[in-house]
Amino acid sequence: MSRFWSPFVKDLVPYVPGEQPKVENLIKLNTNENPYGPSPKVVEAIQRELNDSLRLYPAPNADALKAEIAAYYGVSSAQVFVGNGSDEVLAHIFHGLFQHGRPVLYPDITYSFYPVYCGLYGIEAAPQPLDDDFCLSPADYRQTNGGIIFPNPNAPTGVGLPLDEVEAIVQGSPDSVVVVDEAYVDFGGETSIALVDRYPNLLVTQTLSKSRSLAGLRVGFAVGHADLIEALERIKNSFNSYPLDRLAIVGAVAAMQDQQWFDHTRNAVIDSRDRLSAALLELGFEVLPSQANFVFARHAQRDAAELAQGLREQKVIVRHFKLPRIDQFLRITIGTEAQNQALLAALKAIL
Amino acid sequence: MSRFWSPFVKDLVPYVPGEQPKVENLIKLNTNENPYGPSPKVVEAIQRELNDSLRLYPAPNADALKAEIAAYYGVSSAQVFVGNGSDEVLAHIFHGLFQHGRPVLYPDITYSFYPVYCGLYGIEAAPQPLDDDFCLSPADYRQTNGGIIFPNPNAPTGVGLPLDEVEAIVQGSPDSVVVVDEAYVDFGGETSIALVDRYPNLLVTQTLSKSRSLAGLRVGFAVGHADLIEALERIKNSFNSYPLDRLAIVGAVAAMQDQQWFDHTRNAVIDSRDRLSAALLELGFEVLPSQANFVFARHAQRDAAELAQGLREQKVIVRHFKLPRIDQFLRITIGTEAQNQALLAALKAIL
Repeated sequence: MSRFWSPFVKDLVPYVPGEQPKVENLIKLNTNENPYGPSPKVVEAIQRELNDSLRLYPAPNADALKAEIAAYYGVSSAQVFVGNGSDEVLAHIFHGLFQHGRPVLYPDITYSFYPVYCGLYGIEAAPQPLDDDFCLSPADYRQTNGGIIFPNPNAPTGVGLPLDEVEAIVQGSPDSVVVVDEAYVDFGGETSIALVDRYPNLLVTQTLSKSRSLAGLRVGFAVGHADLIEALERIKNSFNSYPLDRLAIVGAVAAMQDQQWFDHTRNAVIDSRDRLSAALLELGFEVLPSQANFVFARHAQRDAAELAQGLREQKVIVRHFKLPRIDQFLRITIGTEAQNQALLAALKAIL
Repeated sequence: MSRFWSPFVKDLVPYVPGEQPKVENLIKLNTNENPYGPSPKVVEAIQRELNDSLRLYPAPNADALKAEIAAYYGVSSAQVFVGNGSDEVLAHIFHGLFQHGRPVLYPDITYSFYPVYCGLYGIEAAPQPLDDDFCLSPADYRQTNGGIIFPNPNAPTGVGLPLDEVEAIVQGSPDSVVVVDEAYVDFGGETSIALVDRYPNLLVTQTLSKSRSLAGLRVGFAVGHADLIEALERIKNSFNSYPLDRLAIVGAVAAMQDQQWFDHTRNAVIDSRDRLSAALLELGFEVLPSQANFVFARHAQRDAAELAQGLREQKVIVRHFKLPRIDQFLRITIGTEAQNQALLAALKAIL
């Protein structure tokens, strides 16, 4: 704390990302990265851009990437916003679309960055409890609000919400923006982008970090009505003219184009998830039904913090949240088959 | 305008960056990019990182880059903040260090993003007129304020402020943060980083976009007291955990390490600036004394907007600001010798 800080800074409770360990030889199943690398075409595209042109500013509006995403989802470029990871996109959403002096609603168990954004922009937060099955109840969101946000599938549970329930939430709050955070949707969820042309208050965010294997490149986007996108552009252009660097733009374009790589790797993850879930069940875990590239599981007898520690001693790291209701769960990222087998072997050794 | 926008959004007047033309064969002297490419070692470093590791998140705190900058300037890593271009760094500064309910002071002729940040964060702005020679008067900054910011050398004038005058401003406002924006300092200015250990209210920002030829990679930083850096870290970690991607981090580290390339290219720019300034004088221009990689010049007889348009027709683009006091000036980025000669030839053709 310093007298130079803007007053709100001392009350900020920053987001704590999953550990990026500096030790080698760890099996890293803690931050939901894709176990497979990005498309070789991404590497080639960046390769081609890796030259003296780095001295020049990037295209400020990343038009080529917007056009590619727009074509992919059958919307117009004016319905697409891109940013430095979906976290930056979400930050601009809270700032530009959620400051209405009314509380923002989100599930009590969810992406832990949402309350952080509320703190950053002075927005009241009103978390809504998931039910006993860790499902979101649309009826909870029919109340006065200045915005609604939830991941679909939810994190860290992996549980998905059917599209008709998403739609019920969007219809229930026609005067505020409903954001569906689809960071994990490509692993078995159903995107709400199909609904954006019918609901001017619906905004869908996605990231290239997970299903496109580009966590290291920092690219995310939002799709919605052009009026919502315009608010985000105004914020972005009042914050940083060029959030996406030249390499990220060409890499992201190539990633969106390589449908074959995308399908191959996400299907591999989905198959591995189903096998891993079954194996965890056999080891005495309850596993929530996951539509994501991770599973959320608790053991009937063993304490989750102890298991996480035991796994770490076996060189496997998973994520454990010391939070109410979920402190007996482990969030385990789906790895390669070999990594998943190593995880199971380590679990067998400590159970 | 839409009812979904946070109320302040409609009043935002976003920053307008210099044009990034999509036409080929233009001589682009309008956005102060370096005419020389980045160090070949930057390209090599990125090359080495261009692989499957893109699937993994970057180091959230970019520790390797902070350590490199700290070593370069003889400060500790805790005194260094890094961001997605110095624009992002500046945005976090306005948000985290300038919101004190008192006006922020900056020159009336300066980087036009400062008033935009004030609008974004609801901060009152109190621009202070430069004198008739386009110099900043330290005495103007001895008044109640919630923060002070100015570029040194200033933009778009290129005029530098001696270090003792910077120090006078810092001493004159011990209860608020004074930010020296050194985007162009490496082309002949004097850095204030030497002063940060003596003044807990001094923060210096720099960018790798200009003197390190990396506008396309988006890396900037701030150096100051660890308490000021902590405020920026708290904001950053409440906004986006990983603003620098994996490629930007290794590229920036390599750029900071290659002193030889840095010296060679910046000296070439400085030499060309001196030659270009002399040639412009001969053509009837007044040229402000520049410590930057651009010159700010007005012709005794010819209208600046007309000259800019005439140059464009000759395939040379420079920047012209339709703003009070400077609407008769052209801001001309220093190009290669060949580009500068082409500019002079084009000017001769239209004068």
